[in-house]
Amino acid sequence: MNGAEIVVRTLISQGIDLCLANPGTSEMHFLAAMDTQPGLRLVLALHENVATGAADGFARIAGRPASTLLHLGPGLANGLSNLHNASRALSPVMNIVGDHAVAHRRLDAPLTSDIEALARTVGVSTCTAQPGSDIAGATASMIAQARGPVPGVATLLLPADTAWSEAPEHAVMPRAAARPSPPEASALDAAAAALRQPGAVLFLGFGALRGQALEAAGRIAAATGAALLGQTTSPVLDRGAGRVCVERLPFASDAALRRLAAVPAMVLAGARAPVAFFARPEQPGQLWPPGCRMVELAAPHDDALRALTMLAEHIGAAASADVRRYPAKLAHEAESWIGQALASSMAEDTILVDEALTHAVAIASATAAAAPHLCLQNMGGSIGYGAPAATGAALAAPGRPVIAVIGDGSAMYTIQALWTQAREKLPVITLIVANQAYRILELEAARMGVRDPGRAMENDPHASPLREVRCPPGGLSHLGSGPAMRNDPHASPLREVRCPPRGPLSHLGSGPAMRNALHIGAPDLDFVKLAEGMGVPGRRVRNAAQLAEALAEGQRLHGPMLIQADV
Amino acid sequence: MNGAEIVVRTLISQGIDLCLANPGTSEMHFLAAMDTQPGLRLVLALHENVATGAADGFARIAGRPASTLLHLGPGLANGLSNLHNASRALSPVMNIVGDHAVAHRRLDAPLTSDIEALARTVGVSTCTAQPGSDIAGATASMIAQARGPVPGVATLLLPADTAWSEAPEHAVMPRAAARPSPPEASALDAAAAALRQPGAVLFLGFGALRGQALEAAGRIAAATGAALLGQTTSPVLDRGAGRVCVERLPFASDAALRRLAAVPAMVLAGARAPVAFFARPEQPGQLWPPGCRMVELAAPHDDALRALTMLAEHIGAAASADVRRYPAKLAHEAESWIGQALASSMAEDTILVDEALTHAVAIASATAAAAPHLCLQNMGGSIGYGAPAATGAALAAPGRPVIAVIGDGSAMYTIQALWTQAREKLPVITLIVANQAYRILELEAARMGVRDPGRAMENDPHASPLREVRCPPGGLSHLGSGPAMRNDPHASPLREVRCPPRGPLSHLGSGPAMRNALHIGAPDLDFVKLAEGMGVPGRRVRNAAQLAEALAEGQRLHGPMLIQADV
Repeated sequence: MNGAEIVVRTLISQGIDLCLANPGTSEMHFLAAMDTQPGLRLVLALHENVATGAADGFARIAGRPASTLLHLGPGLANGLSNLHNASRALSPVMNIVGDHAVAHRRLDAPLTSDIEALARTVGVSTCTAQPGSDIAGATASMIAQARGPVPGVATLLLPADTAWSEAPEHAVMPRAAARPSPPEASALDAAAAALRQPGAVLFLGFGALRGQALEAAGRIAAATGAALLGQTTSPVLDRGAGRVCVERLPFASDAALRRLAAVPAMVLAGARAPVAFFARPEQPGQLWPPGCRMVELAAPHDDALRALTMLAEHIGAAASADVRRYPAKLAHEAESWIGQALASSMAEDTILVDEALTHAVAIASATAAAAPHLCLQNMGGSIGYGAPAATGAALAAPGRPVIAVIGDGSAMYTIQALWTQAREKLPVITLIVANQAYRILELEAARMGVRDPGRAMENDPHASPLREVRCPPGGLSHLGSGPAMRNDPHASPLREVRCPPRGPLSHLGSGPAMRNALHIGAPDLDFVKLAEGMGVPGRRVRNAAQLAEALAEGQRLHGPMLIQADV
Repeated sequence: MNGAEIVVRTLISQGIDLCLANPGTSEMHFLAAMDTQPGLRLVLALHENVATGAADGFARIAGRPASTLLHLGPGLANGLSNLHNASRALSPVMNIVGDHAVAHRRLDAPLTSDIEALARTVGVSTCTAQPGSDIAGATASMIAQARGPVPGVATLLLPADTAWSEAPEHAVMPRAAARPSPPEASALDAAAAALRQPGAVLFLGFGALRGQALEAAGRIAAATGAALLGQTTSPVLDRGAGRVCVERLPFASDAALRRLAAVPAMVLAGARAPVAFFARPEQPGQLWPPGCRMVELAAPHDDALRALTMLAEHIGAAASADVRRYPAKLAHEAESWIGQALASSMAEDTILVDEALTHAVAIASATAAAAPHLCLQNMGGSIGYGAPAATGAALAAPGRPVIAVIGDGSAMYTIQALWTQAREKLPVITLIVANQAYRILELEAARMGVRDPGRAMENDPHASPLREVRCPPGGLSHLGSGPAMRNDPHASPLREVRCPPRGPLSHLGSGPAMRNALHIGAPDLDFVKLAEGMGVPGRRVRNAAQLAEALAEGQRLHGPMLIQADV
């Protein structure tokens, strides 16, 4: 048995059955091994960032790792940004990268590079399987590292001569992932005391936003009066009608600072203490106020269900408490026709992949009252996660509907994912929110004081940041008054833009660099043609009725579809 | 003046006038600076690997660096594989990467990663411009590093607070690139003696394949009887009717070993000593035979023109020597209809970007007798270089025709380049050789002994590696007998596949993993639709006449076009 066969056999014995691949010459023996050692399914991606992003999506839904198969340093580099996102999502990924034969490396052939250095930037662990070593042991060890206790990306480098050489077969036992410790009694006491302070926040992330953990959090909030606040993004959240209502910390750091300004205490349940996505001049990066009491009940990788259940028991939060839940119908008109159509069309248990950026909050507001669903969000901030993650999620849950809502700029990063969806006949609807701009950067420019960074788009209420920065009423008080919106104030980041002071750039209108960099129209992107080019049928819609019709059509297909929603 | 303005002003003062960009929030002050400090043109790419590959292509044609502008670690990661290719091409690239503000990094916000570690894997130098430091000096220093003496990728990390903070303006003088030393007299003696040995090879790469350097090499070969052999790939070569004829070292290492087996001496002129692209079991990675005398006349980064001119004088190679040149018309029928149509259609001075992989040799054979042109090749082996490099080449030479011949698998890596071509109205014809397969991997599988790794494609002579491995006559003796082919035996790699021995995998037919990984049809890729989706007109052709017509149409356009050639 050669080294490649030993790796494949070990992957299978440790419960890995999916390999998301874009292999090359140095991985050919691995491919051959997959055909002699059946049990590991290969799904091809036309770009490595599709493979790695799919591994992230798969792990989030399946709760276990898939493997990748990438070609040398450049193949890893191509897939690195979605491995970054996976790593930030604590998604277990068994990342397999072929390397030159050991003796070949010092010849510095064209494809030679420092693969380990690349892998270390995203990984919990990296290991090279030397020829003749205990290859099964090295493989099993990397799988265990990927699983945790802090899950993430573990990279196995497989030199070509390790793959093709006969090697001794070492036995490997299946290993259970290490289980994190439960919170100590003192942490429960501290959390209970903190949550009883008026204005306190129970800050939820990762596992705390799922199923029974979320239910326990809802009871704790009802019993203590604390607010339930979710991280700006989380890997998977349970949302929709009847589910416990969770406010989300705004993305914009000025809005987040305002939300937390008067919070006396935060209890972290599966969440990290909140920091700003980006630094800004004259603004702290740490979002909680000085003097705010921070209590960690469960770290992101901890068992949030167990921790929240213990805390609920500790404070005697009754199952019958008056938990605030999303209603079955919004009490107000949805502010986004995309959100409105989505909310009314989504089937129960849909996996909603969110990479809508500036449109995300409006969609989240509208779908709060949709049929119960899962929502996946980008954890690492590197755009191009959505289409690959949707692909992986669909592979993890055969037959379950997946809808990925993606901004046009983000979609262009990993548009190749559509081809894999077509080949694998995955029921993924890709809904492109097409504003033909990097709108989020237009907002940044407006914040910096640049005059009129955006082009005029008369029909799009989200078009001109200038219109939005005309000092709306402060905070969220202008939002609709339905119970969902009171409890789920996913305020539009557009509204969060306060009138900028006359900053250092307020003298600056938008010049050619700013205009060129922010607009991705001219030529406009036709995603229907892009999809059809990869075997995916497409529709283009301009209002809620057309979108609802297209969504209904997509949900009847046994395969992927793309819908371009022009806003 | 803030730090971003200082960087922009320094770039301009050092002769950089093009910025290939995909910026994000942390680069907004840089964008604003480009609008206050005119002289640096921004060209937007929808994916970073387009920006970095375009910087490579620009440098190869312009002979000077462009800058990039990338967003944090994930943005750099996305562009890293084409920076790897640029680095291997010794292309000077001023790589600018935004970073979080210095104090923000330790908060470990979602987009934080080890950017310097990534940059070091492809770079000659990496430097972080700290707030308040000599920012102009740091910028100028990185530009100088990019220029050489060994040119390559120099990375300037620009923290957001460096960009936005006022900083002292330090004066920076324009710097000339350091000039490498000429060869010493002893090297000229050694080279002359080596080349006079029967069967000796003058091995050319980089600058030795350009203009007067190539002419000098031709005279040296005529005077000494040495063979002119080019590296398997070089960054830019002068080819076509009337140009000095240069044989190319085959890509396949078994064929390369056979070519060099009896060579007693090699003189390296702008070339590295040849090594195999990939290791193979039972085969050396070093391609020159033991005992072969190796003489370095000029390293890849040296001034090959000066070295070859000095050598020609040293040996008294007369300008009137009978230099072997490509004829104006091939003496044989082109073996590829794509090559045939290209050769007859290419305008003089066309920039031909070659990423055709398995079709490259047939195209090179056919275009040897085309109008004089430049050819760009992939130096780092990471596919996805072609469309971005063509984009950069067109930006470097406004109005000059560019034709990029790209395999379908490679094209899908960086298909987003078409959008930039459309936006900038670049006269690039992208010619997709669409076999709907990773054909080069099918050949590898055949070499490994896997039975029938390819699907049957009746109409494509290149389709079945099995058909090809039926032991053709050895070496290149079966090739057409025209002078071009005798001197330019770019033998098809298909023909170079000898009957594999009954290797360890000869028991193995192609299973689902091999089939899935090697074929990229099902669904077939429709590049015409992909192009139209990005504003580029497309045509689909199936024979030489249709291709010639489409090429003529494309050459009349003042903008890009895509042609899908189904083979």
